Formats: sequence, structure tokens, C-alpha cells
Amino acid sequence: MVLNPAFIIQKKRDGEALKEAEIRFFIQGISTNEIPDYQATAFLMAVYFQGMTLDETVALTRAMLESGERYDLSHIPGFKVDKHSTGGVGDKVSLILAPLAAACGLKVPMMAGRGLGHSGGTLDKLESITGYDVRISKTRFAEIITKVGCSIIGQSDKIAPADRKLYSLRDVTATVECIPLIVASILSKKLAEGTQALVMDIKVGNGAFMKSKEEARKLSRTLIQVAKKLGLPCRAILTNMDQPLGNTAGNAIEVIESIELLRNERPAADLKEITIQLCAHMLELGKVVKNLSEGRKLAHARLADGSAWQIFQDMVKAQGGSLEQILDTKKLPHTSRSLVWKATKRGYITRMDTEVLGKILVELGGGRKKASDSVDPRVGFYFHKKLGARVQSGDPVATVYVAEKMPTELLKELEALFQEAVEIRGERKSVPKLISEVLT
Amino acid sequence: MVLNPAFIIQKKRDGEALKEAEIRFFIQGISTNEIPDYQATAFLMAVYFQGMTLDETVALTRAMLESGERYDLSHIPGFKVDKHSTGGVGDKVSLILAPLAAACGLKVPMMAGRGLGHSGGTLDKLESITGYDVRISKTRFAEIITKVGCSIIGQSDKIAPADRKLYSLRDVTATVECIPLIVASILSKKLAEGTQALVMDIKVGNGAFMKSKEEARKLSRTLIQVAKKLGLPCRAILTNMDQPLGNTAGNAIEVIESIELLRNERPAADLKEITIQLCAHMLELGKVVKNLSEGRKLAHARLADGSAWQIFQDMVKAQGGSLEQILDTKKLPHTSRSLVWKATKRGYITRMDTEVLGKILVELGGGRKKASDSVDPRVGFYFHKKLGARVQSGDPVATVYVAEKMPTELLKELEALFQEAVEIRGERKSVPKLISEVLT
Repeated sequence: MVLNPAFIIQKKRDGEALKEAEIRFFIQGISTNEIPDYQATAFLMAVYFQGMTLDETVALTRAMLESGERYDLSHIPGFKVDKHSTGGVGDKVSLILAPLAAACGLKVPMMAGRGLGHSGGTLDKLESITGYDVRISKTRFAEIITKVGCSIIGQSDKIAPADRKLYSLRDVTATVECIPLIVASILSKKLAEGTQALVMDIKVGNGAFMKSKEEARKLSRTLIQVAKKLGLPCRAILTNMDQPLGNTAGNAIEVIESIELLRNERPAADLKEITIQLCAHMLELGKVVKNLSEGRKLAHARLADGSAWQIFQDMVKAQGGSLEQILDTKKLPHTSRSLVWKATKRGYITRMDTEVLGKILVELGGGRKKASDSVDPRVGFYFHKKLGARVQSGDPVATVYVAEKMPTELLKELEALFQEAVEIRGERKSVPKLISEVLT
Repeated sequence: MVLNPAFIIQKKRDGEALKEAEIRFFIQGISTNEIPDYQATAFLMAVYFQGMTLDETVALTRAMLESGERYDLSHIPGFKVDKHSTGGVGDKVSLILAPLAAACGLKVPMMAGRGLGHSGGTLDKLESITGYDVRISKTRFAEIITKVGCSIIGQSDKIAPADRKLYSLRDVTATVECIPLIVASILSKKLAEGTQALVMDIKVGNGAFMKSKEEARKLSRTLIQVAKKLGLPCRAILTNMDQPLGNTAGNAIEVIESIELLRNERPAADLKEITIQLCAHMLELGKVVKNLSEGRKLAHARLADGSAWQIFQDMVKAQGGSLEQILDTKKLPHTSRSLVWKATKRGYITRMDTEVLGKILVELGGGRKKASDSVDPRVGFYFHKKLGARVQSGDPVATVYVAEKMPTELLKELEALFQEAVEIRGERKSVPKLISEVLT
């Protein structure tokens, strides 16, 4: 078989299913730069329009996985489970869940990502802690998982390089929102990190990439089927992202909220519930418990007895992070300037445009417009009120931590955006269910 | 309006019509390399799937035209008309038509192309004549048109550079077959060359880019509408390409056939008919005659009286080509090696797979697989029999002129392909009509 990039593009353009060898040839060519970027992006757009069969998506995932290194953690005793979230605003679950699942007896090898666009990233949050190193070696990663129980790191350059390249091209060619490409991107990395099972937190709502449940279900089904074909047991939990998760959005401020939850101090109910539930699914997948109810019980216990909090400290210490800062969170990076954005009328909060809230955070410096931007760990939101809350005119809705140098003019514009994004009406509206579906 | 390439790609991907400013921004960015090729090709694939409205296609054509230089021939007396063909096998019409239309009183500024894939190119044919220069200056082009009446040249680097760049990208990303892109590519060049009207020869059949009349009609209608909006009167003639045009396919051999027709020596009926008909349309558009029938009469007369043949000689001489070679065609480049491919049974020729015949010519060295390939002017086909002809087993179907160094093994393979491409059956089948439709 003669393999020709233009012919493979044409075949996909015409809606034909590609053979595994064709997909492998194309992805290898992208990794080695033998296939130029301009052919890669035409291919991506053809996939956007024509989709891929299950077999093609499996082949794509495998080819991307095989473009790089694969971590072998089989020598580590215990069942390795990871969680992946499709991202949103205020989603600091990984910071709490990794040590909690470890405290319950699992091993958690977690390769996390950075924020992009309105969506935050676990690595940026952890890097608010001075010294925390997300780029430790493969050996050190394995050591920490063995001794501490969990480790949260970044994707090394050697993991799925084809995915990194394709992702940066997708980002600038309107080919991000495409299920087979999303699935191959997520799973190639998860398969490379050495996990034995995966729980997917699929966010749905106005702050998520998936705006409708139908899209989220379609993505979930494909993820589960492809993961299964590649030997990775996987389940997907559909969770709501029509408002920020928990009470905070930002980097250092989300670390603080995570620590407070781990210390059993005034946790936000939604954040705690979602963490316990995801942990129960991980425990069931890892056969640590017989069913979800047992899993929830165990997770509650390990949170309450402080063992999850201890593992978080151990992980931060092992990765070079400042223990002092997490024991006394006032020592985390902070700004001296804050504002209070208030309700302009009385009523109930009926809608929060979460994507807009995420974009305001980006404008404040707490996120990235493009991958090369740097992030200010100090800025962020504390939400006093969320969906369904009753407010009087003048009630604080959010405290906003801003950089000292931020122009007042710009802050006024951002407040106007905020007021538009947070709808207050005379009649209460029902709040969307936090966890709507579980797909296995 | 903030113009962002990724957003423009997304808009087109989602099927929205782009604004003129967006199209101009994108095409300018491609010309100046400010928009990278990988965004250009994603855009092209999105256009392939979503198409373009008439207004978008007009804007695209104008933006491509304005990416480069525009020839102003308004100082030349007489009506300037050009002809463009969508290409096929054996299509040497331009070589005869340009001097013939000039002999009838028109001025013909013709910017022609090179062969690519199975399709031949006018420039390659003319370059069989030693010294013929297709890259003369703008001033010289205008001078020759003024004095001789016609000039056939190549597209200079300064004409529609955005088109040249996009075309080379389309060629390797399966985005050639897309009507708005084809239309903008053709018309941007034609508008730049300074013609006042255009006759389009739209080839339909198994040797053409358009395989069906429906596609050809769609292309023709778009061409005519866009040209009209840009002030260029245009008509389209649908002509058959289910067999090679005339009796020859190759480069020098097609020059010889053209000269023989200009000299009124044993011309192939189809080649003569199509040339006369296209000339009549050019004359009608240029208002040299009142109707087509007068146009045909005038064209026949100028062919018969030798004035077209004289203008051909003048043009070749003016562009530096060897007069000796065209006066004695045995002096044109030729090979000492030829084969005769014969009928393997008796019957009628019922089908000629013209694209395959064109590809055999490419394998012989007479065409290009990629734009940077060079062409052997000496190789080619002389067809003794065409569609509808009665043959006995052993009758010569084609004489094939091949390079001395061509391996015999390869020639056997090519003959097998030829035998498959030329179908002989016991019952005669009707031959497709040469000129099927005229669209204005």
C-alpha cells in the first residue's frame, strides 16, 4: 500500500473510513514533521466534518500514544486510577480528590493540564505553591506514587508529542470541538501515564466545552468505548457547569479552598459532593469497595479523619512545594487590592454565565488567552452568592482580588460584564442538578 | 471589527457567509505570510465543505486579483478577448484559436498554464518550440498583442500571488475540486491579464475535472455570475472530454497537429469544429460579427486563407521561438523510438478512459506528477482510432513516441493499462456530442 498524505486527506474528506496503517502513517508523519502542518490542519478540518468511526478513533488514539513514551507503573503495588475533567471554572477537584483517593487505598498517577481560554488548569493552581514542581522525572513520579499514594504532574515533552502538536494546531484552526479528536487527545495521555482505570468528569453547561447533555453523552460514550478497546476501564460522570464549582475561581484562592475542604473547614457543598462521588467511583473501579455507597462512606471517613489532608501535605512536600504556605495559607501569593461586586437589585440569582466569568478571570490575569501567556496566581473570585441565592440590592455577590496595577477603567468594564453575566430575577428558578448521569 | 484568522475559519466552518473585509483580510494575510499555511488549508477545507455564496466568491476573486499586479491593455486598439479551458487530454485549441481570433480582428491576451496530473498545458506545448519565451515582460506582451494580434504567455510571479500560493496548497490538501475556489482562481488571473471578455471551454467527461454535466453547469453558472459582477462578460461552452481532443496528445506532437490544422492539412474534425465554434463565440462577444453563424463563416475564411497560420508564425517569432522548426516540423524535438499499440480484437471502440490515457502520457514523461517535474516534449500519442471507430484485431490504435531510455518492462505495463482504457465491443455505441451546451 502506497501511503500518500494528500490521498489520506481526500479519503477522509470523502467520508471514507481510514485504515489503521493510514492513520498511523499520518500521525507518525506529523510527529516527525515529514507531513507538514498545512496537510495536518486540512486533515483535522476534514475529520471535523466527516467524523471518525470507533475503529478509526481507536487507531488515532493508539497512534498518538505510540508517538511518545509510555510510563510503566506496574511495579507499584496497588490499583492505579486517575480522574480527568473536561474543564470549567472553579474546578479544583483534582487537588482534593488525588490525596483523598490515595488515603482510601488507591494509587493516583495524575498528569494534569494548564488553563486555556475561560477554563482553569490544575497545574497553574498547584504552581501557586512556591517550589511545587510539575516537571519531575518519570522515576520521581513513580517514587512519589509509591510512597505518598499520589502525584500530580504536567505532561512531559515525551508523552504523546503528536497530541501536543495537533492540539496547538487545532487551537488556531477551529478544530477543537470534534469528538474523535478530543477523545484521542485525552486518552492517548491517560494511557501513557500508566493508570489502570479512569473516571471522567464530563462538564455540561454554560461554562463547559459541552453546552448540551446530548453532546456530553456522545463524548462520554465514545470515550468509554475507545478506552475499553484499548484496555482501560473507564466511566463518565456528567456534572453541571452552569455556575463556578465551589466558592472560588482563580489559582492561589482555589488552593486555599481545596485546603479548607481537606481540613474540613466550611466546605462548599457542591465541591465536597462532587469530590466524594468521583472518589466513590474510583474506589469501585479499583475494587477497594463493593459498591458506590461503601465508596462514599470510605471517602467521607478519610476526609473527616484528616488522612487526605496529610497526603496532600506529603505530596506537596515531595514535589518541592512550600509546606509553610499550605499550613498557613495567608503566606500563599496574594494581592493587596480587592473589590466587592454587589447586587444591583433584589431577587434571586437565576443565571450565571460561567464562560463569561472565566473570561473575566482571564482579563484579570488569572488565565491564558494563548498557551504562552503567564498567569498571575494571586487574582481571583470569591463568590458570596451562587445560583438560587436570594439577594438584596447592595449585597456582595463576589469579592474580586485584582492586581495592584490593574487600571480602574478596565475594572469598571469587567464589573459591567460581571453584572450582565449574573442574572437577578424576581422569581426563583430551580438550580440544575450537580450530578446528572453516570455512563459506564 | 477585530479580524482574527481562527475566528474567520470558525465562521466558515459553521456555514456562515463571510464579509468582504474578512475575506480580504484572510487573502492578504496569506499573500504576506502573516497568516500561516496551516490556517490557510484549514480554511480551504472549511470552504470545501460549506461552499461560498456568490458575494463571497466575488470578494474572494477580487481579493486574489488585488493581491498582485493588474495589466492595463486599454491603450491597445481593438477588442480584447481570451479563452480559458478547464483542461483535458489533447486540448491544443489555444495554439490555433489565439492566432485565428486575431486573424478575424480581435486582440487576444492569453495567460496560459502548465500541465498537471493527467491534464496537459499550453505553455508546455509552446515550449517544445526552441526559444519560445513564455515569460516576456508586461511591455513586450502588450507590444506583441498590438502588432501581431495575440500573445500566449505564462502567469508572472506578480499576477495574483495569493492564487499561486493557494493553488499549491490546494493541490496537496484535497481541496482542488471546489467551485468557489476554482472560480476565484481562474477569474483572478483572467481579470489581471487585461482581457475585456472571456469564453470558457468547460470540459465534461472522463478526461475532465468535471465528470458530470450537472457539475459543469454549476461551475459555468458561477463563473458567469462572478465574472459579470466583476465587469467581465463571459460565456461558457460545455464540450466533451470522453476521448482525447484531435488525434494527438503530447507536447511537440500537439504543436505539429496545431500547425497542420492552421495549414489546412488533414485536420481532425473535432479539433477544427471546437476551434471554429469557440472563435465564433469570441467574435460575437467582441461584436466583430452580428451572430454566431457569421462568426463561424469568418473563422472558416481566416483559417482557409492562411492568415491565422501567418499570425501564428508572427507570434512564435515575436516570442523568440524557432521559425525554422514550425515551418519544418520534423525539426521539432523528436524521439527515435516509437511503438504501435494495436487492437486485440475486432469491434468498435466504445469507451476511452481519457484520464488513464493522460496518466500514461505522464508516465512516459510527457506530463507532470508534481509542479516541479520537467516535461519531455518529444513523447506522445498519435491516435489512429477514436470513439466509434471500427477496428479489426491487429489494427493500430495508437502510435506511441517514447524516450529511448524508457524500460521495456514499464512500456509493457503501460500498454496493458492502455488496452484496459480503450474498450472494444461488438456493438457500436453512440459517440457523445462534441459541444453540448452554451451558457451565457
